[in-house]
Amino acid sequence: MLLLHLSDVDEANWAEKLRAELSPYPVVRRGDGFDPAAVRYVFAWKPKPEAFDGLTGLKAVLSLGAGVDGLLKHPRLPDAPIVRFVDADLSQRMSDYVVAHVTMHHRLYTRFRADQQARRWSQLYPPAASETTVGIMGMGVLGQDAAARLRPLGFTLRSWSRTPKAIEGVEGFAGAETFEAFLAGTDILVNLLPLTPETTGILNYETFGKLRRDRLDGGPAIVNAARGGHQREADIVKALGDGTLGAASLDVFETEPLPTSSPLWDIENCYITPHIAAISDPASGVRYFSQIIRDHEAGEPLINVVDRQRGY
Amino acid sequence: MLLLHLSDVDEANWAEKLRAELSPYPVVRRGDGFDPAAVRYVFAWKPKPEAFDGLTGLKAVLSLGAGVDGLLKHPRLPDAPIVRFVDADLSQRMSDYVVAHVTMHHRLYTRFRADQQARRWSQLYPPAASETTVGIMGMGVLGQDAAARLRPLGFTLRSWSRTPKAIEGVEGFAGAETFEAFLAGTDILVNLLPLTPETTGILNYETFGKLRRDRLDGGPAIVNAARGGHQREADIVKALGDGTLGAASLDVFETEPLPTSSPLWDIENCYITPHIAAISDPASGVRYFSQIIRDHEAGEPLINVVDRQRGY
Repeated sequence: MLLLHLSDVDEANWAEKLRAELSPYPVVRRGDGFDPAAVRYVFAWKPKPEAFDGLTGLKAVLSLGAGVDGLLKHPRLPDAPIVRFVDADLSQRMSDYVVAHVTMHHRLYTRFRADQQARRWSQLYPPAASETTVGIMGMGVLGQDAAARLRPLGFTLRSWSRTPKAIEGVEGFAGAETFEAFLAGTDILVNLLPLTPETTGILNYETFGKLRRDRLDGGPAIVNAARGGHQREADIVKALGDGTLGAASLDVFETEPLPTSSPLWDIENCYITPHIAAISDPASGVRYFSQIIRDHEAGEPLINVVDRQRGY
Repeated sequence: MLLLHLSDVDEANWAEKLRAELSPYPVVRRGDGFDPAAVRYVFAWKPKPEAFDGLTGLKAVLSLGAGVDGLLKHPRLPDAPIVRFVDADLSQRMSDYVVAHVTMHHRLYTRFRADQQARRWSQLYPPAASETTVGIMGMGVLGQDAAARLRPLGFTLRSWSRTPKAIEGVEGFAGAETFEAFLAGTDILVNLLPLTPETTGILNYETFGKLRRDRLDGGPAIVNAARGGHQREADIVKALGDGTLGAASLDVFETEPLPTSSPLWDIENCYITPHIAAISDPASGVRYFSQIIRDHEAGEPLINVVDRQRGY
């Protein structure tokens, strides 16, 4: 039996689609009459505190999101394996956002907008893409997809990750001891890391101060498409104000929705989007999780299982 | 003998580099003492009216720009073959601009900026790149390079050109009779056409009204990286104001520099850059034109010769 426990999304729609796909395998929602001990899979998003109570026969927790940092903080999370969502459509949309904001900063959008507002015709030729280095933090599925799309545009690419990753056309840096060297050659910093205790607050003033300063007019830029917990917003405000950063694109925030009182809203070189970089598409999600359940019921091992020790 | 006649660029710098590369072949500038009849090649950019007077022994006119519309309007242009600049570096820079502005409109930058100014958190998920069609007008060297860089991003691509072009992954439309069908499926229109009598003013209100309206929130967008003569600026002002267009990125203008009095400066959904999409890089240009001269002096035919009849 599959139990849905989805908040902030259209759970009824997911239930209908999963029933159609998995039938005759039983799919239930909170409030339906069922025996908690008979639940083998729970499909969760932003689970309430009591979400997992009584689920004594669980084989797996299925996470609607690619990031499981919220789920891992659940105080009564059962000991079953956690399967996270990995999806080509989600990766494409995330890369759409990353490419749009990287190229915007590379082409000095902030400068030309200020010139336009002043009715100023002032020619400056941005560096070619090949003369500009994009540093990607996080080389999982999303980081690799972003690299694969930025490479044909001609950018020089480097990556930083926990463990070494050999990706063609990307200079790889791994581990805390290489972080400074990674930043020192980066003009545009893209964050696609999982949120873990080690990566919390990694986008801070000290990090920004180590980026390369002499390539992009106005200073280096950051693009955060991962989690608000990665960034120190007070540091971003300071860095955008004093020129340590030339621009910042933020799709995620420490508190969401971003409070009306946040100073970020009014900063000219801060580019805010309301956590819309990418969404998990129901059609893809239904296909993916139905296959996970069918395969596992047929005796196959689970795929894309979260390592609780490393946190993703 | 090579004569330089370059306005609005650092002619002395070009002369020095061409001399170093071509030596002992003679390279002269206006004002130097030389016999006009001994000039075999003239390297021109924005030539003055008297530029070609007395050059009775010319083998070729070398054009610093990729576009030769200005040169072809010269009243005393000699009858020699015209070689235009074709360069991978120039193509890359032009594509950098095109990709940055296409992706910006695809990701609904205008909408999210308005939301930010209003401190409004309003989630809307842009379509995936694959759900968005970019229509490229002009499938020469620059159009093909732009297509090759947009394709790995996942966009659906179509092209419109004078004669049919078979480019992998691009649905080709050719000739005036297919123009409406081409526009009807285009969400973001990119202009990379040569400026000829047939293409002058092609970016007009009637054209804008035929673009696809139901895909991009706010309406279709245009990106003009070719020539100001392609666009009717009064029509762009009207179309951006009444919603016929959702946004416009313009790097070129009917009059350059764009006059301070132009209404375009103040339009929120108009993105102005001061003709900086791409510049002809001296290092590449010196290599390219030196090779042209050496090869031709060795008896090889000229390459990238302009067809005066078609105008590019």
